[in-house]
Amino acid sequence: MKLNIALLAGDGIGPEVIDQAVKVSDAIAKKFNHEINWKPALTGAAAIDAVGEPYPDETHEICASSDAVLFGAIGHPRFDNDPSAKVRPEQGLLKMRKKLGLFANVRPTFTFPSLLDKSPLKRERIEGTDLVFLRELTGGIYFGEKGRREEGETAFDNCVYTRAEVQRLAKKGFELAMTRGKKLCCVDKANVLETSRLWRETVQAMEKDYPEVEVSYEFVDAVAMRLVQWPNSYDVLITENLFGDILTDEASVISGSMGLMPSASLGAEIGLFEPIHGSYPQATGLNIANPMATVLSAAMMFENFGLQAEGKAIRDAVNEALNKGIVTEDLADGGKAYGTSEVGDWLAENI
Amino acid sequence: MKLNIALLAGDGIGPEVIDQAVKVSDAIAKKFNHEINWKPALTGAAAIDAVGEPYPDETHEICASSDAVLFGAIGHPRFDNDPSAKVRPEQGLLKMRKKLGLFANVRPTFTFPSLLDKSPLKRERIEGTDLVFLRELTGGIYFGEKGRREEGETAFDNCVYTRAEVQRLAKKGFELAMTRGKKLCCVDKANVLETSRLWRETVQAMEKDYPEVEVSYEFVDAVAMRLVQWPNSYDVLITENLFGDILTDEASVISGSMGLMPSASLGAEIGLFEPIHGSYPQATGLNIANPMATVLSAAMMFENFGLQAEGKAIRDAVNEALNKGIVTEDLADGGKAYGTSEVGDWLAENI
Ligand SMILES: CC(C)[C@H](C(=O)O)[C@@H](O)C(=O)O
Ligand SMILES: CC(C)[C@H](C(=O)O)[C@@H](O)C(=O)O
Repeated sequence: MKLNIALLAGDGIGPEVIDQAVKVSDAIAKKFNHEINWKPALTGAAAIDAVGEPYPDETHEICASSDAVLFGAIGHPRFDNDPSAKVRPEQGLLKMRKKLGLFANVRPTFTFPSLLDKSPLKRERIEGTDLVFLRELTGGIYFGEKGRREEGETAFDNCVYTRAEVQRLAKKGFELAMTRGKKLCCVDKANVLETSRLWRETVQAMEKDYPEVEVSYEFVDAVAMRLVQWPNSYDVLITENLFGDILTDEASVISGSMGLMPSASLGAEIGLFEPIHGSYPQATGLNIANPMATVLSAAMMFENFGLQAEGKAIRDAVNEALNKGIVTEDLADGGKAYGTSEVGDWLAENI
Repeated sequence: MKLNIALLAGDGIGPEVIDQAVKVSDAIAKKFNHEINWKPALTGAAAIDAVGEPYPDETHEICASSDAVLFGAIGHPRFDNDPSAKVRPEQGLLKMRKKLGLFANVRPTFTFPSLLDKSPLKRERIEGTDLVFLRELTGGIYFGEKGRREEGETAFDNCVYTRAEVQRLAKKGFELAMTRGKKLCCVDKANVLETSRLWRETVQAMEKDYPEVEVSYEFVDAVAMRLVQWPNSYDVLITENLFGDILTDEASVISGSMGLMPSASLGAEIGLFEPIHGSYPQATGLNIANPMATVLSAAMMFENFGLQAEGKAIRDAVNEALNKGIVTEDLADGGKAYGTSEVGDWLAENI
């Protein structure tokens, strides 16, 4: 296969972890006879510094004309705690999601047996957890009209959803459930919100097309509880943008393997793959960041191209590295800690 | 003191647990020489059945003319999973909050040493947790304009906040922090929402009036994570209505003592006190529901009248019951389980 991959390293540790994913992907290409054409582009604070824009048109062109985007991390402390900042890295992220049509954010939460004890939850609560959130990513309150009235004294954000938006996300959810445990949970706040009632009625109407899938409906506050109590009771969960933002982050810490969690954001045409962790500015350039989540994001990328064996080869290498203790300091537990690039090298060599 | 207390038992186990809180409060009145005039009124599914309305005007009149409201629980399964139901118990709850002006929901999460092992979190994560959420309760997306357009194909919910609404909630937060650990965390999504930017700038402007309070600002998704990782790092948290709904429920399960958590909803004139648990329809009438959260809600009520010794007497009795194992089956752990009313009797006798 010939693959054009846009490479958005971003800020902080982004460039370092992306480098390792490139190494590993190149090793995969060599072994399985693919050709990857990497196309680096600017984003985040790095892009603001260079051209005054977190998601420049040039970057968009590169992404839109590629087969996929591999993304590091964005965000920089100098943009935090300043609600009035005119240009923020996050705006680039939102613009990118919207312009590339990345409507489905796929966020798995699973456990690695060797890392179970890192979880803040007791072992019996977390063992066997293997769930996936599908978060709607281009609608809702993130993208509705927002602004001020009464000379700035009143602020508003509008949450809007169309039935078609719910359907295309829910369809992915049903299809994903069919390939897994055949359970789908629709997370909403239908006892209060009209948008949630639209979500619920739309999903209810789709149930008959997937008779094998067992569908449940839960309020977002109830799910926030059950994720901590019995995370292993879930399979696939679908939800709207803001609920998904909160719940996927909550879910990410329960496994104890947050530094290892990959994600995908899928559109009709193109997919973007990135680790769920942030840009950890304080670790920048120290060669200590854990590259495994980014490497596993590359695995999701190959799988999304239908290249299952390639994805599995990466996952196997990561599992072997974990078992052999070829890990960065966050997982070293008093043992030897390898550098970011050493872990990347080891993984590439063991593909 | 002469106290007029509206008594809203509600649905499911509501009446049973309310009965125990009345017993205990009456014992307090006797011991400390107060006079309590209980004024029962209908609410929830019970009110819908009786008069077709979850929060009838008559009930409102009784509440508005009382010094406080003691509330059980509402909700009934026959109203769930029916997004099109015209009258829902929850509407009564929202109408009550709005009409009584209950703008500040106070939700403590604390641990009982004897119950630490009930937590889904590891002991070292949860030990020492003692935090309070102040959730804004009469604004935001709960009460903004909502509806459908394009023949029902598009749904919307508007989130609106005024600076004055933020100020009065934040003021309570700063004041509460001054009586406790002097730490205040403002939870928002200021990187995306205009309403959150209003929250953040308003709280920032108030900081100078409380120089002793250490204020932090965290995104809602980050708080959803840290609550599971290090709940004991928080003191007072303030947040808007929907974020508060999700996060207070998440926080409630980390302690392992959910069945014991009380809450208050305060307005300028009147306060409402209720357990955070639901109406557990399946336990109705079985005399097995744990009444302690409702009893502790009565303690919060006395304290809100400035009657600290009365509140403490209730808390001491609950602690003693826990230590002695005078508990319902949810806490019995293989030992003897007492009935709802037996626990209430014991507490009343030991005031
Ligand atoms: C940075 C922020 C705008 C973003 C979001 O809220 O979507 C982030 O939290 C995420 O989940 O990717
Ligand atoms: C029942 C529902 C409307 C309510 C809310 O969302 O406020 C409940 O979840 C709560 O937190 O009191």
